Amino acid sequence: MPDRTLWWDHPTTSLRFVNQTLLPARYEIIRCGDVSRLEQAIRTLEIRGAPALGVAGAYGIALAALNSTAPSHGQFISDVEGSAFSLKRTRPTAVNLSWGVDRVLERVRTSPTISEGRVAALEEAERIAKEDIAICHALGEAGAALLPQRCTVLTHCNAGALACTEWGTALGVIRSAVEKGKDVQVIASETRPLFQGARLTAWELERDGIGVTVIPDSAAAFLMQRGEIDLVMVGADRVTRTIVYNKIGTYMHAVTAMQHHIPFYVAAPLSTFDLHSRSDEVVIEERGREELAWCGDREILPHGVPVRSYAFDATPLTFVTALITERGVLYPPFTFENMLPPQPPL
Amino acid sequence: MPDRTLWWDHPTTSLRFVNQTLLPARYEIIRCGDVSRLEQAIRTLEIRGAPALGVAGAYGIALAALNSTAPSHGQFISDVEGSAFSLKRTRPTAVNLSWGVDRVLERVRTSPTISEGRVAALEEAERIAKEDIAICHALGEAGAALLPQRCTVLTHCNAGALACTEWGTALGVIRSAVEKGKDVQVIASETRPLFQGARLTAWELERDGIGVTVIPDSAAAFLMQRGEIDLVMVGADRVTRTIVYNKIGTYMHAVTAMQHHIPFYVAAPLSTFDLHSRSDEVVIEERGREELAWCGDREILPHGVPVRSYAFDATPLTFVTALITERGVLYPPFTFENMLPPQPPL
Repeated sequence: MPDRTLWWDHPTTSLRFVNQTLLPARYEIIRCGDVSRLEQAIRTLEIRGAPALGVAGAYGIALAALNSTAPSHGQFISDVEGSAFSLKRTRPTAVNLSWGVDRVLERVRTSPTISEGRVAALEEAERIAKEDIAICHALGEAGAALLPQRCTVLTHCNAGALACTEWGTALGVIRSAVEKGKDVQVIASETRPLFQGARLTAWELERDGIGVTVIPDSAAAFLMQRGEIDLVMVGADRVTRTIVYNKIGTYMHAVTAMQHHIPFYVAAPLSTFDLHSRSDEVVIEERGREELAWCGDREILPHGVPVRSYAFDATPLTFVTALITERGVLYPPFTFENMLPPQPPL
Repeated sequence: MPDRTLWWDHPTTSLRFVNQTLLPARYEIIRCGDVSRLEQAIRTLEIRGAPALGVAGAYGIALAALNSTAPSHGQFISDVEGSAFSLKRTRPTAVNLSWGVDRVLERVRTSPTISEGRVAALEEAERIAKEDIAICHALGEAGAALLPQRCTVLTHCNAGALACTEWGTALGVIRSAVEKGKDVQVIASETRPLFQGARLTAWELERDGIGVTVIPDSAAAFLMQRGEIDLVMVGADRVTRTIVYNKIGTYMHAVTAMQHHIPFYVAAPLSTFDLHSRSDEVVIEERGREELAWCGDREILPHGVPVRSYAFDATPLTFVTALITERGVLYPPFTFENMLPPQPPL
């Protein structure tokens, strides 16, 4: 079982997290005592993964509340709101970040005093982290039944313990299935440009003793053609009424899975669902040229050649066989009736 | 206009070629005086690309003939046949290598003396190189008409001058279209694991002043969804009666292009056509773990995690809008009637 990815360290009044940019070469724990360091961590992907970003955002507001030196309650609220605004701006696509920030901010806003606001903020952030763990396990249980007794699963990017507080979403389902005695082999697409599949998913599964093989992203379709993939299981950064936003490459896997009649599952907690936004309102983050231009110490792109590097893509729900949530499995047509996921205040 | 990729250097009686593993950082010309150095160059991809491999194989037999110290004509033939066998084994999927080797070998076999065999071998290799240039230009002319006056073309890997003697196949079509005054933008998928798209295609097009943008392989489908790609143009390593074998990732592009009703063109000289082999007879080369495990100086894969790294994949002709050859454009149904491509002796 994996360690936790991020947690509150009471003795030092700070957030601690695993630096995901250094894995698998180095397992480094960062101590983060203020919002600007946290923003840096989110921007540089030291912390990444939609559920983990939700928890990080929540702790970020706790840090803002604890660090505020505002002389008045009004100024205190305004300080924390400023941090909330700035935190939410760091990564625009994953909805969980805003969701975690807003949920704690609401507790700060409705607390009558500064000290009560501080207590409430940390309490709420801790609750969100605890809930995240329970949710991943519930989601894993719900999804495990979808896996045949013996199967090979393609996953993309990292939707594992590292993307959450622990256990994972897509990898949580796989872990739960393995726990139930199923024989699951995983094919991890390496996930260019930052190799979250090769670096993080392979590292997590190897540690857990779950068989994992890494392939170039572009090879998945060919392995499907050869009958070597039984199903696809990915996470999500945002699920709207019509579209799953997830790591660039997800859409490619969805199209090729449909071509080969292979089930395509998306595992995501309800905090990832955004039933309010229209697709033209969702900002798809673009990343910098250097992530594609350099390979370690080697410059692989000629000078002056530009790149297009979307961090995410958009998979219409028409490609999705089922959505796996902590409240169970949703099948098409996805009406989202009787679903009341926690939503940020409008 | 690009320089030549490989050529015979008469003063030194050796083959010279551009080392493609070092681009774009360094433009290095290698002098190759014997078959074992040439085999190393082919195995390590210093020389790569189906048509270039055909020419390299041809020159390899010329080298074998020139270097043989056999005392008898029978021993001479047997020496050259040994080199032919060994050269053909270096890369099994691209058919041109065998084709070039066999064409020159046949000239050696039918020459009555050692010295005539040597002259005939070099003459035939030079003819193949010259033909390759003419063929790429004819193929480019034939294909250029398929491109709209203003369009964005997705290409994969490198089917450019570097993959041939000069001009290129897929990029030859693009060059010919640009020469005719068409406004062509190219999107090059980087082509994991060895980045031939980012390193070689981007380098070639940048030098020619043709607009090129590099994307991760996994982003092509999303750009198709966004309407940013008008057509796909790739080369081929082998075309059988039912399947196009080309760089891993080609099949993914073909499936996603069909999903978006985007034309998918394959540009290949007739020397790439193999109308004799069945698909179960074609060996798809697998490459070593280190190509995926390392990114420059950085090890990105945890120790002990295995990879699957096919160098090529198989795209059924049902996904192909048209095949572009030096004799014109072929459309479905591909019957290959009245086509008499040069074939290796059975």
